[in-house]
Amino acid sequence: MKKPTALSGFPEWLPEQRIAEQKIIDTIRTKFESFGFAPIETRSVEPLEHLLKKGETDKEIYVLRRLQSTEHDENTNLGLHYDLTLPFARYVAQFRDQLQFPLKRYQIQKAWRGERPQEGRYREFLQADIDVVMERQLPIHFDGEIPMLLHEVLSSLPIPKVQILVNNRKILDGAYQAIGVSDVPTVLRIVDKLDKIGESAVAELLERQAALTSAQAQTCLALARIRTPNASFADAVRALGLRGDTLETGLNELVYVMESLRALPEGTVIADLRIARGFDYYTGTVYEGLMVGHEKLGAVCSGGRYDDLVEGGGTKLPGIGASIGVSRIVGRLFGQGLLTASRPTPTCVLITLPSEEARAEALLLAHSMRRRGINTELFHEPAKFDKQIRYAERKGIPYVLFFPSEGGGFEVRDLRTRVQAPIDANVWTPAESDRVPSLVSK
Amino acid sequence: MKKPTALSGFPEWLPEQRIAEQKIIDTIRTKFESFGFAPIETRSVEPLEHLLKKGETDKEIYVLRRLQSTEHDENTNLGLHYDLTLPFARYVAQFRDQLQFPLKRYQIQKAWRGERPQEGRYREFLQADIDVVMERQLPIHFDGEIPMLLHEVLSSLPIPKVQILVNNRKILDGAYQAIGVSDVPTVLRIVDKLDKIGESAVAELLERQAALTSAQAQTCLALARIRTPNASFADAVRALGLRGDTLETGLNELVYVMESLRALPEGTVIADLRIARGFDYYTGTVYEGLMVGHEKLGAVCSGGRYDDLVEGGGTKLPGIGASIGVSRIVGRLFGQGLLTASRPTPTCVLITLPSEEARAEALLLAHSMRRRGINTELFHEPAKFDKQIRYAERKGIPYVLFFPSEGGGFEVRDLRTRVQAPIDANVWTPAESDRVPSLVSK
Repeated sequence: MKKPTALSGFPEWLPEQRIAEQKIIDTIRTKFESFGFAPIETRSVEPLEHLLKKGETDKEIYVLRRLQSTEHDENTNLGLHYDLTLPFARYVAQFRDQLQFPLKRYQIQKAWRGERPQEGRYREFLQADIDVVMERQLPIHFDGEIPMLLHEVLSSLPIPKVQILVNNRKILDGAYQAIGVSDVPTVLRIVDKLDKIGESAVAELLERQAALTSAQAQTCLALARIRTPNASFADAVRALGLRGDTLETGLNELVYVMESLRALPEGTVIADLRIARGFDYYTGTVYEGLMVGHEKLGAVCSGGRYDDLVEGGGTKLPGIGASIGVSRIVGRLFGQGLLTASRPTPTCVLITLPSEEARAEALLLAHSMRRRGINTELFHEPAKFDKQIRYAERKGIPYVLFFPSEGGGFEVRDLRTRVQAPIDANVWTPAESDRVPSLVSK
Repeated sequence: MKKPTALSGFPEWLPEQRIAEQKIIDTIRTKFESFGFAPIETRSVEPLEHLLKKGETDKEIYVLRRLQSTEHDENTNLGLHYDLTLPFARYVAQFRDQLQFPLKRYQIQKAWRGERPQEGRYREFLQADIDVVMERQLPIHFDGEIPMLLHEVLSSLPIPKVQILVNNRKILDGAYQAIGVSDVPTVLRIVDKLDKIGESAVAELLERQAALTSAQAQTCLALARIRTPNASFADAVRALGLRGDTLETGLNELVYVMESLRALPEGTVIADLRIARGFDYYTGTVYEGLMVGHEKLGAVCSGGRYDDLVEGGGTKLPGIGASIGVSRIVGRLFGQGLLTASRPTPTCVLITLPSEEARAEALLLAHSMRRRGINTELFHEPAKFDKQIRYAERKGIPYVLFFPSEGGGFEVRDLRTRVQAPIDANVWTPAESDRVPSLVSK
């Protein structure tokens, strides 16, 4: 029997890493809830036709087949979802009559894409999404609330600073229209490659594939160069001589967003007109967050406004949201040894077992300590104390508790300081910081 | 565009149900950690050959295929896991050098089976597993700790009482050998149908399919009828006149387990010799838990000891564990209206927005209340107060906060009592029980 091996693109973590990831998920969840976002989960699968309708990831979908099924014994072809936005849009349409709007939901779940794995790009990955969906009109207020919440969440995690870049699809659409571009989606897709292939290659593609003149291509590049930490981007766009209703609407919306975020630390949010985001369903504000010092990793959060994604049966159901790439963030930090947990177990105290006869009393003591909120293990057999202590040391359990030897009382040893002292086992409590493992970042 | 519909076997919950499910998961997790079990997650997929090696669920596996892949461009066929035990066994073998033994882990994840959906039987479902794996020998201590932990977890949830039935495969194997049965697995599989088809049908199958004599079949049934709330089952087995080393080992192990659980309330754990569990990998103690009043739903938790499941490369790595069927439990309780959350949102306070001019101050106030641990929403537009209050009422938000009108101060209204009172917004705190939604069981 050969040893099992990892599957490329399907990351797995050691217990101390999973503890760290879990603490990060808990923080994200607490922050989402502090803004009033409610949890939902959607099934992992969607009908294939729904998955193929939007986005540009069609070839990356995993399709399911029951092992023993013949080709046609299923009515519906099912695929694993590749994001959490599309399933959420379907959920809202399906349960609409039982939901209250504006619906604010968060969703922390796996998604799957059959892409070629590379650093930060997994085939199975964990996303933490927030979205707001409202009937008829979704106020611009939420375009500002989403990055505020992203900042609140990300700045509370022990990870490198994340800079949030904001743009508005209407600015791009309006500007491209203003210079006479007819095939806007193609231009968007090409400009989106700026980070990967650089300005001159983008200019060449714009001329060759999108049939732009050199002047048009240069204006696209000039627009993409605009990047300001405040609302001054609008003047820079107007200085390019571009005009139009869609453009003005986009500029006003992005000005509102930037103004509403002025209370955040300088440089947290940047208006960056090169941001487009790949998915076709965005219609206004778009977001992308980069981890400072790890920009090559790609976006660690992203999102935007989608006015037409949710099928409302006659009524519009516009939405806006963002997704935090939990696996991408922790995968990088684990990989570089920048993040872990202080120990690979939740256990705070190991009760040593002196003899088989003491087991019943030891079980009762363990029970009462757990009731007092102390994570407690009882060693499983009356082995030599050295062996029991070594087990605690290997697992990083901070305290070991000893039963009374003749004439004495219970004692606790702190394995880090090696100080051992008598205690009253019914009231003893560990230092608050030792109760559960903590995050350790470097 | 027709409204999306549910997919049979893929349950989804409303926000208030998901909040309830999440609280149940949190409780399970806290209890698992209080016993020193560490979290891990495994990838959702395993190589198909690994999934087919054990168990009897082969035809229920979902196999993955990339939408655009040709038949043979992948080296490995992947399937979604159908339980969490097999992936865990593979994980232990793979990461063995980086793990500390005895390894105590918990794992709360989805699993998938392409079975025909029916009540309590889903195609996608959430499981909460605990397992202990140790090198060479796994002390019998853990056979008693697992049901103790199951009881501790399940009795702390707002669900009907769960009765835990325990047996030992060695008793069945030993007893069947003692009466001269040659094909033990077939007999096990037939006796396992007792609850579904009854004694006379089982007897008939034993004679027809397993070639047992009528007397042999009757002894199998007599054994399966033994059911005691204490260790007295052993005398009942011996009274059947059965003898043998394997049988004695099994009886002694089950006696130990029952004795070690004497501190639990009477009737919590029952020695029930009809319990076999379907998976082939169990080698000793087996568990099955039934929710009182909902026995027809099937097991809501189950598990057992597997001495040979983890590939140790020469060294044995015996394990024991159990799985709580979270989806089966909450699906039943949601379906019968027996469980929900007190509100469909985590929000505790809605700050009303009196005017656009007040927005900056309202944002700051919301921020400071969140910092004080109060889940706070700010209404998104300066609509009429009636509209803002109606939104809070529809979502079940308990408190609404009003900005000062001329000459006054901040005020808070409790929407349940309709009492409104002036407050100092910087120090006001809600009743502790209102901070987050609570579980409501009927």
